[in-house]
Amino acid sequence: MPDRTAPGPAELPTTAAGGAPVTTTLSEQDGAVVRRTVLPSGVRVLTESVPAQRSATVGCWVGVGSRDEDDGHHGSTHFLEHLLFKGTERRDAMDIATAFDAVGGEANAATGKEHTTYYARVLDEDLPMAVDVVTDMVTSAVLDEDDFASEREVILEELAMNDDDPGDVAHERFAELVLGDHPLARPIGGTPETIRAVGRDDVWAHYRRHYQPSQLVFTAAGGLDHDEVVETVERELARAAGTLGEAAPAPRRTGGTSGGLTASQVLVVERPTEQAHVLLGTTGLTATDERRFTLSVLNAVLGGGMSSRLFQEVREKRGLAYSVYSFAANYADSGYVGLYAGCSPAKAGQVAELMLAELVGLAERGLDTEELQRGIGQLAGGLVLGLEDSGARMNRLGKAELVHGVFLDLDTVLARVRAVTADDVQAMAAEIVGRPRAVTVVGPFADDRAFRGVLP
Amino acid sequence: MPDRTAPGPAELPTTAAGGAPVTTTLSEQDGAVVRRTVLPSGVRVLTESVPAQRSATVGCWVGVGSRDEDDGHHGSTHFLEHLLFKGTERRDAMDIATAFDAVGGEANAATGKEHTTYYARVLDEDLPMAVDVVTDMVTSAVLDEDDFASEREVILEELAMNDDDPGDVAHERFAELVLGDHPLARPIGGTPETIRAVGRDDVWAHYRRHYQPSQLVFTAAGGLDHDEVVETVERELARAAGTLGEAAPAPRRTGGTSGGLTASQVLVVERPTEQAHVLLGTTGLTATDERRFTLSVLNAVLGGGMSSRLFQEVREKRGLAYSVYSFAANYADSGYVGLYAGCSPAKAGQVAELMLAELVGLAERGLDTEELQRGIGQLAGGLVLGLEDSGARMNRLGKAELVHGVFLDLDTVLARVRAVTADDVQAMAAEIVGRPRAVTVVGPFADDRAFRGVLP
Repeated sequence: MPDRTAPGPAELPTTAAGGAPVTTTLSEQDGAVVRRTVLPSGVRVLTESVPAQRSATVGCWVGVGSRDEDDGHHGSTHFLEHLLFKGTERRDAMDIATAFDAVGGEANAATGKEHTTYYARVLDEDLPMAVDVVTDMVTSAVLDEDDFASEREVILEELAMNDDDPGDVAHERFAELVLGDHPLARPIGGTPETIRAVGRDDVWAHYRRHYQPSQLVFTAAGGLDHDEVVETVERELARAAGTLGEAAPAPRRTGGTSGGLTASQVLVVERPTEQAHVLLGTTGLTATDERRFTLSVLNAVLGGGMSSRLFQEVREKRGLAYSVYSFAANYADSGYVGLYAGCSPAKAGQVAELMLAELVGLAERGLDTEELQRGIGQLAGGLVLGLEDSGARMNRLGKAELVHGVFLDLDTVLARVRAVTADDVQAMAAEIVGRPRAVTVVGPFADDRAFRGVLP
Repeated sequence: MPDRTAPGPAELPTTAAGGAPVTTTLSEQDGAVVRRTVLPSGVRVLTESVPAQRSATVGCWVGVGSRDEDDGHHGSTHFLEHLLFKGTERRDAMDIATAFDAVGGEANAATGKEHTTYYARVLDEDLPMAVDVVTDMVTSAVLDEDDFASEREVILEELAMNDDDPGDVAHERFAELVLGDHPLARPIGGTPETIRAVGRDDVWAHYRRHYQPSQLVFTAAGGLDHDEVVETVERELARAAGTLGEAAPAPRRTGGTSGGLTASQVLVVERPTEQAHVLLGTTGLTATDERRFTLSVLNAVLGGGMSSRLFQEVREKRGLAYSVYSFAANYADSGYVGLYAGCSPAKAGQVAELMLAELVGLAERGLDTEELQRGIGQLAGGLVLGLEDSGARMNRLGKAELVHGVFLDLDTVLARVRAVTADDVQAMAAEIVGRPRAVTVVGPFADDRAFRGVLP
């Protein structure tokens, strides 16, 4: 599907004019204020102050993910994420852990295919401490040799844990199959082989290359004061000024579609499991494609809740699965859509056919107004409910900055979702049906015979 | 450990005097008001209205869990929980699903060993609808024969999914080993054999016996009005009056300790996994034991966060595990405490020894004030942060009513946690070390040789 980026609110500028911070107000809605400051170094700070909230979540987003890794060093972005908790010039691993634990905060990190996020949720009074520690971790990690060797073992255990989860394996293999030779296709964590092969200096080089001011975005939401957050970030960045790179405007990943599945395929991973994990799907939309709102409604209708077609048909009417749903992932220049069910191996072929039939039915016969409105209502209610969580608001800011390049407030998003028509949804279902199809199955299967029937 | 129920706030009365509802205010703190009404039927309604919250979570708690099942019908409480989503006199499965999906709400249910909960989180304006639907589901389910047959297959898939998760299996087997011949030892979902054997009329009888007014507790928290919630519950209960049983005071499960591990044991479940899942522990405290606050602090210090002893020793220093923690479960008349790690099979024996050494170290050498205060701070901060979620507040009300028999407000709980001393924690660690020990391991092991060393 080609990229059609919508006209909309002005793109966020990525440079500070001259030598002073530039602050703008992006949104004011229901008392919550979103502000954005670009520091002279190019570091960006976005906050949303939410009245009466007693907690706050801070995140540091870095515009580097597994897609940015060199060959032979796959998994090093995730490895680095672990190492940043091991210590800085001023703090060892215990100091970092203690800082958050002592106040009952939750600190963690997540590595994605296009960005890495370090975050902490704390009481509002502890936010300056959290901003301080997160900034220190991101800018001043030391990557000690002994820590590196020990953390390598931890990551191998994490990979082993994921490999023992057949549903995880099915999803990983599905993404690989659909995204083909695109760097996005690779698993985020790398493989045991690449993790054993990568050296401390390789990861250090990766750190220094990508953790640059122009790639750092601090976001915070909850009970906070924007200027105080900006000042804390500035103060901590100043300490690390010697090791951080030059000021520069932020690069933004380009849109357009590239790579991906060119011919339909079935991939079977044989495992001695009780359940089969069945996925089918194809390439999808980029993160900036305006039709992502249509795809959201399609997902809600097809496999987004208990009233969705997949849930009703596969689980409620036939009792064939406990877990059944549809999903989508959108990246800068590629994406995928998929349908999933976990079911009895003896019924897996039938379940794949039933899932496909629901997708085809939507493409051929469309949906009525009631079903469309239910899908829209589901998304709209979920959006509003989601905003009660300061972590969700923090994430919204990070994605606005690094993924969409524009901040859409709740009313704008709701308007886009409500503008989706039944014809839009049907047309998108038809497009998905018409594309090359990927089928991935994990379970006790010696071959792919049971699944060839769902290829076009 | 013997039960020592603390003196404290007056126990919640379980009968309405005469024919009128009795409403009391249990707490007013930071603008949030907790109120409780006992209806003439014995049905209890507890709400917490939280100022400025735009969402609300409603739950219906039923005082029946897997421990209450007859032999031969194990898993029928969980089976029933599924069936209640399949339809009532007035609504079919699609109507129930649509009611929540159309407003973007989240509805689900959870079956425990001592109670079952049906809950929904919605925007405040949708709360009356949510209360209506949940009450209808709980009081007026029909348990249609065809739905029963189809849902049996869904539950078998759920059991298969859990069986494919080696960590889940390890935790289930550990609870069985520690709780011994107590009905609490049984897995909540039953087994494929019991699920295949149980009939619709068996589950219907279980429903009618336990879903009685005296066992129903409605709790709601968020943006709400207590009287409105009570009126909605009353109106919906009135519709179902013919099928519900007689008014009666609520029975409360008795305390005291019974059953459980009498001799140390190792149980190995052989599985061809990449990781080994190692648990060790013993019997713990009842849910009303005053020392549960001490046990919470012990858990925070031993294995509750990144700064905990287990995390630092097993993961940070030695890189032996990705996931390592300690945990506790407290029931009316039994409970357990455990230590868990997922690690390389080759290192599993060593990891079990290291975990035990941390527990023994705490018992023999205690902890200093700084570590104690960190554990207390972690719990305190977590308690305050938790209250931002209307679901957590809803759960607190249900547990006050069904588990503790008393509502402890935040200040009271904080005071209890802060009263815990280093001597208390050390004494409890010593008591745990001194009890018969259960060790459960899932992984590629032909025998228990590697783990006999951690038995007393």
